[in-house]
Amino acid sequence: MATSVLFMSMSVDGYIAAPNDRPDNPGGDDFIRLHEWGLTPDGQDFRTSGPAGELMAEVGSTGAVVAGRRTVEQVDHWGGDHHGRGVPIFVPSHRPPGPTVVNYPLVTYVSDGIVSAMEQAKAAAGGRDVLVQGAYTARRAIEAGVLDEIQIHLVPVLFGGGRRLFDVLPSRVELEVLRVVDTPEATHLRYRVTDKGA
Amino acid sequence: MATSVLFMSMSVDGYIAAPNDRPDNPGGDDFIRLHEWGLTPDGQDFRTSGPAGELMAEVGSTGAVVAGRRTVEQVDHWGGDHHGRGVPIFVPSHRPPGPTVVNYPLVTYVSDGIVSAMEQAKAAAGGRDVLVQGAYTARRAIEAGVLDEIQIHLVPVLFGGGRRLFDVLPSRVELEVLRVVDTPEATHLRYRVTDKGA
Repeated sequence: MATSVLFMSMSVDGYIAAPNDRPDNPGGDDFIRLHEWGLTPDGQDFRTSGPAGELMAEVGSTGAVVAGRRTVEQVDHWGGDHHGRGVPIFVPSHRPPGPTVVNYPLVTYVSDGIVSAMEQAKAAAGGRDVLVQGAYTARRAIEAGVLDEIQIHLVPVLFGGGRRLFDVLPSRVELEVLRVVDTPEATHLRYRVTDKGA
Repeated sequence: MATSVLFMSMSVDGYIAAPNDRPDNPGGDDFIRLHEWGLTPDGQDFRTSGPAGELMAEVGSTGAVVAGRRTVEQVDHWGGDHHGRGVPIFVPSHRPPGPTVVNYPLVTYVSDGIVSAMEQAKAAAGGRDVLVQGAYTARRAIEAGVLDEIQIHLVPVLFGGGRRLFDVLPSRVELEVLRVVDTPEATHLRYRVTDKGA
């Protein structure tokens, strides 16, 4: 069975986007600060070696994506292919998709909720992990008990404002530390969600 | 020169107290979850060995305390002695202290701000570190450029609500990872504040 894993880069104060996050400024002002750990020093390419390269490879090896509508619309669905491997992208949303989606055969809008979206993604992932992205989607997946693991790339900066990964949840959720990768650029924290609620 | 170090236990979603945090329920409902890492399995004593014991010893070796008024009033000034070593406690507050403080010769209320409180604490610390506690006080110290280091005990739980350590700051603040101690009970993250603003 596929494992669903939230992959998010987060500041120490819990933000995943800076102030002024919108489609013409996705991630907000100087949001790249949260993603430098995964880039080569010139900022032009993803790292392919070292601990950060191995973590980026984990993203690349996922077999399907579940991402929130806000996330996908900020980047127009990554041009239809999240990490260049042709894996399907599922977007839970009650509203019909926007006009560009007709151009993206890998993108499926799922109107009947996060549980259905995750089921479809797991079935499509071919035994590989399902990559989950987006703060709202993460919270709904946690609440619904369909998020299996959380990979946080904790970046040594206080953003001081912006959009939070975790905000308010209806109840406490226990985690288990699976792995800590300690690098100067980020502390990479992998958790299992051990307590999926009722 | 003494180093000021914020020591706080925090959930992965950024909370340092659970809902219903008040003097008759300090830390909120089942707040002890955030502090179990420092306690013996029976919950009766602080750990004195292993990585957690070493981290607790760092608290015990500090030479002065700066703590926020809300924090100290929740626990009535720890009975006048924070960690049983007779070190002075400085409380930045514009209002006069409450009635119990007359009983606590180690407790000094400082009415002229966080910078003054930190200066007095560093002078009193005898070259040892200054322990900083409290979310509001932490934010004011960061803003004023008088917080040198941050020690977060990141506990693998999502509280889902409560009081946050970091909320909104006036600007971005860069940190440097000094040390990561990886244990099943908590990920202990030590940062230097490298960018103290204007």
